[in-house]
Amino acid sequence: MTMVDITGKPEIFREATATGTIKLKAETIRLIKEGKAAKGDPIYTAKIAGVLAAKKTSTLIPFCHPLPLTSVKVEVEVSDDSTVHVTSTVRTKAQTGVEMEALVAAAVSLLTIWDMVKQYEKDAEGQYPSAFIQNIRVVKKVKENIRKENSSERKHEKT
Amino acid sequence: MTMVDITGKPEIFREATATGTIKLKAETIRLIKEGKAAKGDPIYTAKIAGVLAAKKTSTLIPFCHPLPLTSVKVEVEVSDDSTVHVTSTVRTKAQTGVEMEALVAAAVSLLTIWDMVKQYEKDAEGQYPSAFIQNIRVVKKVKENIRKENSSERKHEKT
Amino acid sequence: MTMVDITGKPEIFREATATGTIKLKAETIRLIKEGKAAKGDPIYTAKIAGVLAAKKTSTLIPFCHPLPLTSVKVEVEVSDDSTVHVTSTVRTKAQTGVEMEALVAAAVSLLTIWDMVKQYEKDAEGQYPSAFIQNIRVVKKVKENIRKENSSERKHEKT
Amino acid sequence: MTMVDITGKPEIFREATATGTIKLKAETIRLIKEGKAAKGDPIYTAKIAGVLAAKKTSTLIPFCHPLPLTSVKVEVEVSDDSTVHVTSTVRTKAQTGVEMEALVAAAVSLLTIWDMVKQYEKDAEGQYPSAFIQNIRVVKKVKENIRKENSSERKHEKT
Amino acid sequence: MTMVDITGKPEIFREATATGTIKLKAETIRLIKEGKAAKGDPIYTAKIAGVLAAKKTSTLIPFCHPLPLTSVKVEVEVSDDSTVHVTSTVRTKAQTGVEMEALVAAAVSLLTIWDMVKQYEKDAEGQYPSAFIQNIRVVKKVKENIRKENSSERKHEKT
Amino acid sequence: MTMVDITGKPEIFREATATGTIKLKAETIRLIKEGKAAKGDPIYTAKIAGVLAAKKTSTLIPFCHPLPLTSVKVEVEVSDDSTVHVTSTVRTKAQTGVEMEALVAAAVSLLTIWDMVKQYEKDAEGQYPSAFIQNIRVVKKVKENIRKENSSERKHEKT
Repeated sequence: MTMVDITGKPEIFREATATGTIKLKAETIRLIKEGKAAKGDPIYTAKIAGVLAAKKTSTLIPFCHPLPLTSVKVEVEVSDDSTVHVTSTVRTKAQTGVEMEALVAAAVSLLTIWDMVKQYEKDAEGQYPSAFIQNIRVVKKVKENIRKENSSERKHEKT
Repeated sequence: MTMVDITGKPEIFREATATGTIKLKAETIRLIKEGKAAKGDPIYTAKIAGVLAAKKTSTLIPFCHPLPLTSVKVEVEVSDDSTVHVTSTVRTKAQTGVEMEALVAAAVSLLTIWDMVKQYEKDAEGQYPSAFIQNIRVVKKVKENIRKENSSERKHEKT
Repeated sequence: MTMVDITGKPEIFREATATGTIKLKAETIRLIKEGKAAKGDPIYTAKIAGVLAAKKTSTLIPFCHPLPLTSVKVEVEVSDDSTVHVTSTVRTKAQTGVEMEALVAAAVSLLTIWDMVKQYEKDAEGQYPSAFIQNIRVVKKVKENIRKENSSERKHEKT
Repeated sequence: MTMVDITGKPEIFREATATGTIKLKAETIRLIKEGKAAKGDPIYTAKIAGVLAAKKTSTLIPFCHPLPLTSVKVEVEVSDDSTVHVTSTVRTKAQTGVEMEALVAAAVSLLTIWDMVKQYEKDAEGQYPSAFIQNIRVVKKVKENIRKENSSERKHEKT
Repeated sequence: MTMVDITGKPEIFREATATGTIKLKAETIRLIKEGKAAKGDPIYTAKIAGVLAAKKTSTLIPFCHPLPLTSVKVEVEVSDDSTVHVTSTVRTKAQTGVEMEALVAAAVSLLTIWDMVKQYEKDAEGQYPSAFIQNIRVVKKVKENIRKENSSERKHEKT
Repeated sequence: MTMVDITGKPEIFREATATGTIKLKAETIRLIKEGKAAKGDPIYTAKIAGVLAAKKTSTLIPFCHPLPLTSVKVEVEVSDDSTVHVTSTVRTKAQTGVEMEALVAAAVSLLTIWDMVKQYEKDAEGQYPSAFIQNIRVVKKVKENIRKENSSERKHEKT
């Protein structure tokens, strides 16, 4: 049982993109779109919660390494009348990848949407038959050597 | 935009159960079952990560209230040759429910499994075509008045 | 040196309101009002950061007690062409007050606004001659006995 | 594997006291006593670090419950020319005890002393042959029913 | 809404200095100077709280990058009979600046002083008419190329 | 009082190993070895808690620098019929050493074992006469120049 030893690995450019969705009732989606969710804007709140969560990854996932994230972007959008879709992209220059950071950002964004609208998802028994989070996955991972240190131009080569 | 004011609500017994699954390659599931995942036991690690995460809910989800959790239980099991299933149950005596705590525990457990086995899920391009988290939901929520304070017997009434 | 012993004090209703302002250039204020700050909406981000910070008070201020906050509300508004004004109100039922929680929420909200717009406040030398945070204070503190436990009606008496 | 379910237990007065020592070189102890440690005062810093750590216990120790600590007191003193002694006492009114909080406070205080003086403990090889932490234990635990709620007078009965 | 992408920026030397003040009653200032504040030494406690807070900046301010701080210094002094003045200086070698870290350190130091002496600032109504935090600002920011890596001598050029 | 300024120091390979023991009753040790501790496996839980704690060192120990840990390994084993022994080894490439990270990992692992078995260590009075943590120390520290950047081969020279 161990945090993998990455001491000898080079620091290279790393990027990962994760996505996921939350299914909600049509009425809830309508409230989100019209900006009428009583607790505040679920989309904006979810973006911020996702960015903050990415930075906490190594304290949430026991064997993740602490990494100096250089970019975290979380996009949240209503994709149809029962779905909110989240995409998170994380970048770093480090000795290991940022898949988990992207996944944590996506998951916490989706959970935040749940929290922001859960009052509308309750049925008469106080249960949540309709809401569920679906299909959290890593859709793209990039790693590459950085040719010219201190340059913003880089050629991307998948590995 | 606000954390809902629960100041005037009574402290009553609260319980919530959340579930979710992660889909993995058959070969990965076999390694988990045989205790051969190189980073350590995914199941045990996921349980601990889930319990710890439940306690961090109010720092992850912006408008969740800090609650004095009195029980967090996370069960993780291989349910078939492509699936690991997580069930988390959280209890408290508080002024609001623990749905989010149960969901956060389930989500972080599932993400931890991902991290523990991600090396086996990579394809030749370094991508993760098979692994995804599915169907995170609240399957049961209980709230009830506590009849006899300081007693461990309680009648459960759904509300 | 000690965290004050509040073991013997009764749990009563507590509320505190703190305010503060940040002074910015007229041009920066205009960008905020028009929703054109490139990093995102400073006002919404500041509200969320303030609520989250209130919940972290006892880990930031060494001798603050951990308290079960029942309400945190942060209001942020442009009050004139050089000023953003923050008001935070925190409630709990506890053995000590929530002044520090309200102050921490206000301070972190103001610091977040700074971060969201600092690119517009830099002068030619990369310095920040115009931006400063002003007048963080507790404007109201309430504590009162709770007459009828589990009731949302309470008579407020200042003490 | 589980956080023990304390939902049905009564909230009663709890107290625990832990102690521990760190052994250091006589020269290091002299620097502490004379207030000449270059990084700052080890004793004062250790007290503060201990109090803060007590409040983080449930995030450090996986199955500890989050508890509303009502008092944390950490005493640090040079007890002889090779020893610094730490005593921490924690109180709460809760459904489970605060032994772990007292132990965590003592341990982190001792570790902080180490950090504050480690430069004086290095030998010619950069190793630390003399410094070690010794004898961290719980020396007293109290639990009792609270006879008169909201009263600061309580009869203590050991259990 | 995004954490700015700094992936392509060079790692250079960064420094920022922030200042701020807290205004208190003359009687409170006297207690601080005479070392008679009952909760402990406000100045020493404020310094430690400020240093710890600087390291938490990226978890408090949503879009701040996590940075490997190489120096955090917080100075706290009574500057006249109604004022405590805080100066914090933070350094790193990183892709973005440490203004926010310096500001967070200063703000949390000032809030900690408030907490340490708030009992002396209450009036007969339990309100705080005299205490307020004033003029938190960035007074200096430095960034420069590091000419000779691994050297402690560097030429500072403002940018 | 200050976090030491390491800005000008080179980033080199760093490693530290710390050890410590917890003394328990023979009956408790037997339960651990037979996997019968009711709260879960103390050894596995202690390893995970130790790894997580190493990553929190700079938020627990006031003047520790945040470091990009590249390896954390915690070994926990029953060494005789009254003793559990913990060894933690931490690595980084940084401007300062990781002694404190190794010590924090060892200490929190030992405290976690305590928590997992404390129910078996209580005597008839509810006290803990037998359990204590002993001999936490740094047994090895390594620092060395990294000859070939991005190479996993390194010659180790003690300094």
